[in-house]
Amino acid sequence: MSEVGRRLPRLDSRDKVTGQAQYIADLYRPNMLHGAILGSLHAHARILSYDLAAALALPGVVCVLTGEDVKGGRFGPFIKDEHVLALGKVRYVGEPVCLVAAEDEATARLATGLIEVEYEELPAVLSPEEAMAPGAPVVHEENVGYIRVHKTECGGNLAWETSFAEGDVDAAWAECDVIVEGEFETQAQAHVAIEPCGALAEIDANGRVTLWSSNQSVFRVQANVCEGLGLPMGKLRCVTPRVGGGFGNKMEMHVQAMTAALTIASGRAVKMILSREEDFEIVRHRHPYKIRARTGAKRDGTLVARDVEVVVDCGAYGDDSPGVMGFSLLMARGPYRIPHSRAHGRLYYTNKIRFGAFRGFGNPQVCFATETQLDEIAEKIGMDPLELRRKNAIRQGDRWAGGGAVNSDGFVKCLDAVGAAWREPRSAPTPGKRRARGIACSSHISGLLATGAIVRMLEDGSLILNTGAVDIGQGSDTVLTQICADSLKVGVGQVSLASPDTDGSPFNWGTTASRVTYMTGRAIVGAAGEVERKIKAQAAEMLECAVADLELRDGGRVGISGVPQAEVSFAAVAGRSHWAAGGPIIGTDSLVYDKPAVDPKHAVTSGVPFPQIGVFSFSAIVCDVEIDEATGKTTVLEAWSACDVGKAINPLSVEGQIEGGFVQGLGFALFEEVVWDGARIANPSLMDYKIATTLDVPQRIHALIVEEPEPDGPFGAKGIGEIPICAVAPAIANGIAAATGTRLRRLPMTPERVLDVMIETP
Amino acid sequence: MSEVGRRLPRLDSRDKVTGQAQYIADLYRPNMLHGAILGSLHAHARILSYDLAAALALPGVVCVLTGEDVKGGRFGPFIKDEHVLALGKVRYVGEPVCLVAAEDEATARLATGLIEVEYEELPAVLSPEEAMAPGAPVVHEENVGYIRVHKTECGGNLAWETSFAEGDVDAAWAECDVIVEGEFETQAQAHVAIEPCGALAEIDANGRVTLWSSNQSVFRVQANVCEGLGLPMGKLRCVTPRVGGGFGNKMEMHVQAMTAALTIASGRAVKMILSREEDFEIVRHRHPYKIRARTGAKRDGTLVARDVEVVVDCGAYGDDSPGVMGFSLLMARGPYRIPHSRAHGRLYYTNKIRFGAFRGFGNPQVCFATETQLDEIAEKIGMDPLELRRKNAIRQGDRWAGGGAVNSDGFVKCLDAVGAAWREPRSAPTPGKRRARGIACSSHISGLLATGAIVRMLEDGSLILNTGAVDIGQGSDTVLTQICADSLKVGVGQVSLASPDTDGSPFNWGTTASRVTYMTGRAIVGAAGEVERKIKAQAAEMLECAVADLELRDGGRVGISGVPQAEVSFAAVAGRSHWAAGGPIIGTDSLVYDKPAVDPKHAVTSGVPFPQIGVFSFSAIVCDVEIDEATGKTTVLEAWSACDVGKAINPLSVEGQIEGGFVQGLGFALFEEVVWDGARIANPSLMDYKIATTLDVPQRIHALIVEEPEPDGPFGAKGIGEIPICAVAPAIANGIAAATGTRLRRLPMTPERVLDVMIETP
Repeated sequence: MSEVGRRLPRLDSRDKVTGQAQYIADLYRPNMLHGAILGSLHAHARILSYDLAAALALPGVVCVLTGEDVKGGRFGPFIKDEHVLALGKVRYVGEPVCLVAAEDEATARLATGLIEVEYEELPAVLSPEEAMAPGAPVVHEENVGYIRVHKTECGGNLAWETSFAEGDVDAAWAECDVIVEGEFETQAQAHVAIEPCGALAEIDANGRVTLWSSNQSVFRVQANVCEGLGLPMGKLRCVTPRVGGGFGNKMEMHVQAMTAALTIASGRAVKMILSREEDFEIVRHRHPYKIRARTGAKRDGTLVARDVEVVVDCGAYGDDSPGVMGFSLLMARGPYRIPHSRAHGRLYYTNKIRFGAFRGFGNPQVCFATETQLDEIAEKIGMDPLELRRKNAIRQGDRWAGGGAVNSDGFVKCLDAVGAAWREPRSAPTPGKRRARGIACSSHISGLLATGAIVRMLEDGSLILNTGAVDIGQGSDTVLTQICADSLKVGVGQVSLASPDTDGSPFNWGTTASRVTYMTGRAIVGAAGEVERKIKAQAAEMLECAVADLELRDGGRVGISGVPQAEVSFAAVAGRSHWAAGGPIIGTDSLVYDKPAVDPKHAVTSGVPFPQIGVFSFSAIVCDVEIDEATGKTTVLEAWSACDVGKAINPLSVEGQIEGGFVQGLGFALFEEVVWDGARIANPSLMDYKIATTLDVPQRIHALIVEEPEPDGPFGAKGIGEIPICAVAPAIANGIAAATGTRLRRLPMTPERVLDVMIETP
Repeated sequence: MSEVGRRLPRLDSRDKVTGQAQYIADLYRPNMLHGAILGSLHAHARILSYDLAAALALPGVVCVLTGEDVKGGRFGPFIKDEHVLALGKVRYVGEPVCLVAAEDEATARLATGLIEVEYEELPAVLSPEEAMAPGAPVVHEENVGYIRVHKTECGGNLAWETSFAEGDVDAAWAECDVIVEGEFETQAQAHVAIEPCGALAEIDANGRVTLWSSNQSVFRVQANVCEGLGLPMGKLRCVTPRVGGGFGNKMEMHVQAMTAALTIASGRAVKMILSREEDFEIVRHRHPYKIRARTGAKRDGTLVARDVEVVVDCGAYGDDSPGVMGFSLLMARGPYRIPHSRAHGRLYYTNKIRFGAFRGFGNPQVCFATETQLDEIAEKIGMDPLELRRKNAIRQGDRWAGGGAVNSDGFVKCLDAVGAAWREPRSAPTPGKRRARGIACSSHISGLLATGAIVRMLEDGSLILNTGAVDIGQGSDTVLTQICADSLKVGVGQVSLASPDTDGSPFNWGTTASRVTYMTGRAIVGAAGEVERKIKAQAAEMLECAVADLELRDGGRVGISGVPQAEVSFAAVAGRSHWAAGGPIIGTDSLVYDKPAVDPKHAVTSGVPFPQIGVFSFSAIVCDVEIDEATGKTTVLEAWSACDVGKAINPLSVEGQIEGGFVQGLGFALFEEVVWDGARIANPSLMDYKIATTLDVPQRIHALIVEEPEPDGPFGAKGIGEIPICAVAPAIANGIAAATGTRLRRLPMTPERVLDVMIETP
């Protein structure tokens, strides 16, 4: 029986539903302290002095740290511009200024209130428009001097500039029969993982720190904490217990370095878990985008040219922003053949919380613009929106923006998969409501950076899989176990998964960029292949045959092809290798995605911050929306989301991702928005920040799995984590436009905003 | 600078002296229970019934288990004869009969007293003589039917029989000018590790158990607990925190399976640590031996023939006894050329605690007989005892008992090393005392079974070494780090060692048989070699040269030979492999010692229970003893212990082993003895069982390191763990004989016994 393709419930679900799964909150170390953060009250101010005496005098307080106490340099994945604690200046409200470790959490939090920090307040810039204005206050005086991982334009408050061009866009407009143009605006969206960020650190007498934390990459935590604290990497072991959700917020470290700093200073174990409010105020959100887009087509629907200009709010620190902006520009063409396309982006520092990675990584923002304009073109030329998309769909043999090869016709298959729903007659709305149907599409990567796998055979023939990949709740532990099991033709029960640990696991860049199934899966197939070769080498000696005559058989056996009775069990192979000859079997693989993001023969770029990306999944989403004419409230009645994942290793898990992505996209489309009151976030709580509940989701989300095998994917698979969210907002927006006759170009599409356009268009 | 050969203080010493090192006693899990054991009051009895009601009614008691509740089969490393809890019968006083888990330790221990077990008492056998007597009570009715790892004679109370013969011993006596013969007796010695055995187990909702324990082999714990509890190995993860000493007592599991059984039954974490008394009563001790030995030589000192017959007390269960007896028979020839030799052993079940592995593994017992007889021959032929040994010393090109090749002249070098001390004039004794000098020699293995290593390069070029080897306090963590560092020409600070974990570490058979430096060291050299090849592959592309032109340079650099400035750092190599090409660097190695223990062309054997062993270290010990004529008390004034370790990876650590081995051997020689009062151990405490203190050790133990490289050892190294203890007792005994003029053939050589012989010989 094949484990790949099996609808296997998650291996971790039993632990989770019984409450036995251990998160940071469940971990304790002997003699453990609790940490707390003093955040800045100012958006922009110079720190003049600290008075820690009252805090230190509070019984139970063990240590208080300021930015001057933290060794190490500036860190950041793209721009080295951030300190673990504010040093010299604060740049956003809530920015950690001081840390306290105390015998209990209440004392630690109380002590933060006793710290006196003297500030010289500075004028703040709270939007890219303010940031780019002549004479604007400068968020980072040292901007130009910062170490950046790639060359880019920068200066003043401009943190990064990226451009991308294929073909001759300026000349191409003349070929177009129809051109649509518009400005779009998307909001800051909060991640709202069920578990806030938290960490627990402990130090040994040699100064080696062990750091448990809720994260999306145990190895990024190690690298970034070491950078932030000036530790050699051998001095920091990072471990990941269960993680309660991550959508990009837990990819780059944050609370980890602060917790480790308190441990190093106090010599004792320290735990620090952010409150929900702190999680809103000091981690990161999805970038607000301002987009100007222009798309041109021929009368027959052939897309000719596209030009996109984005301005992105970076927040106070670079974080993943250059990557998000750069990726969104590559995605701005959409999964379509458009011979002439151009995109340009500018990223501005502001005095707000940093923005960063969030499921979709800039793609949902640009997709909103792209897919809106496709519907506008379809309307202008009188073409069915699905047909317009199919006509221009990228297909096998085509090239991506940047020049990478398109490996499958998965996109067309996604359009086919939603076709029946799209064409099905709509039911009539109830009185006082309007109904319509919308469609939108997207593509998203899964090939990125480095990963490894170690597969070991135990003495009884069972297998240990160790990958360093963090299951953040999306189900990768189950999927990777299935890949390993199927690679060696055993059941998942014969494979045990080691948990991520920088001491014990091979490098894994992280659970991000929809990369785990594709990248780590490939490494597992490679490592299992080495195990298979070693099994066969043992079996050849045991069965006295040539290795080439051997085949793996279901259930952990290896035998001579065509001779059913000539076989040995994995247990027998393991016994021989452990006790007699060859040594216990270990297989490893390690790889880094090395296909260039941009082929200079195909595109002219500057400031694209990542040299290699690739391997694209596809999606097409159709949804039926109903709008209450009295309130403007939009309800999505039913949705069809088709995703091409190459091969669904676990269809149950893929469906979960499709449904989850749709629901999170629904929130982005209709109601989620981080709101600032001046420089302060006005809604940092689940009372005031609305995410989708069961009352908000469609009665049915049809998760339609398309499987067009990716040539080098594990069992043909590619990523599923992000693709299901990218096109949700434009699908709903296109439905709203069909229902109301007017377009909303700003997210979220709240009842107020929908009502506004309905009033304009009776 | 080379790390190998450096006198590096142990990497774990700082943690230990500050009390930060974490042992089982320092670990806690949420909601943890405590376990306690009800031991048998009878040496031999049938269990008729259990009444658990009163124990279960005690508030705080969560579960009570009997042998009938524990799933799984009989386990044992050589004979499958033992259950986790007594089933049907008890076979020694203290044997675990029931287990209790309760909210606290006091309640658990209290509850064991409330359990009523109805027994039918049976007559017990308390010595091999009783066991072999016709009509003796039978300890194991199922004896003949037990699964054994090798074929042997067995039946009645005979658990195992082993014989070994080279040459023609019976005919050889005629060639001898002098023959000595005698009976020797050695006692049960307790391990007395500073930390008693203990374990902590936890279970997840899928029934996977994580088991922390104090052990000498995290993988043997995994295998044996799974065998004892009937778990597939994937369902048990074993982890080892710091271990407070192990001399064989922590090699085979014991408390671990009981703790895991309580966790499985209760669904909660359970910790159980033996009291010192329980550690004496239910773990294992060194085997008492009865030895009849005969040695013959020519007048010129040439050894001709040797015949050894041993009778070994197994105790109630097989444990490592067949291995200990078999190894002692192979060692019975000593490190000498003796063309005709024979050894025969019988192992008898008795109703006592199991005996098992203890530093030296049967070698100290037979060495006592061998080396005593060599002195007797020397005396008879009027030859210097050291010269007699040198004349017959095994040398490069010779063969071991069994036929293995002798790879070095290390033994002769050991004799040379103690030569000056041996010949130095003795100082005069104080009045009322006698002084004399003794010498004895031995050899011991270090090549045995399987091991692995994984070496990974982190993003900053530092290295993680993962071997699964448990540092039981002997210093292997430091030594293995030195081997890894030197293999890649970096400092030890650039190598971090992962702790043993069956999920994360490669297989390691255990910290036993003096095998870690040699076996795991070889695997590290192999894994580091793969890392070196991958480093060079990266560097060749970076420096645009051939791999063959590259050399590793001190401090983590790789460059073109002969071109000093053409080089890149490991950090640069790591950066490239992690971010751009090739993938993060992993090297692995896995091996199993595969040289046969006995070559049938050289020896005729039966019942030798291990097919492969080899690689021998040597030792020669000289000591000056002083005997108080009034009390018979022996004091070792000064000792010279020369050990050939091939290469001292860490001379400080080797010296520590030589000193520690001497001190433990001193206790074995002079005062340590587990004493039975009927069927019950009379001295199960440190009040009543005497080990050597600082008042007992010589003023100076000269640790003399001999380095004759072992051809395939890591940097030429071989084992040091056991060799320093083997010849201590005969060296002291030979000194006592020289002082008193009469021989003691029974250990320990207490003041009473010495006084007895002195009274006989004025």
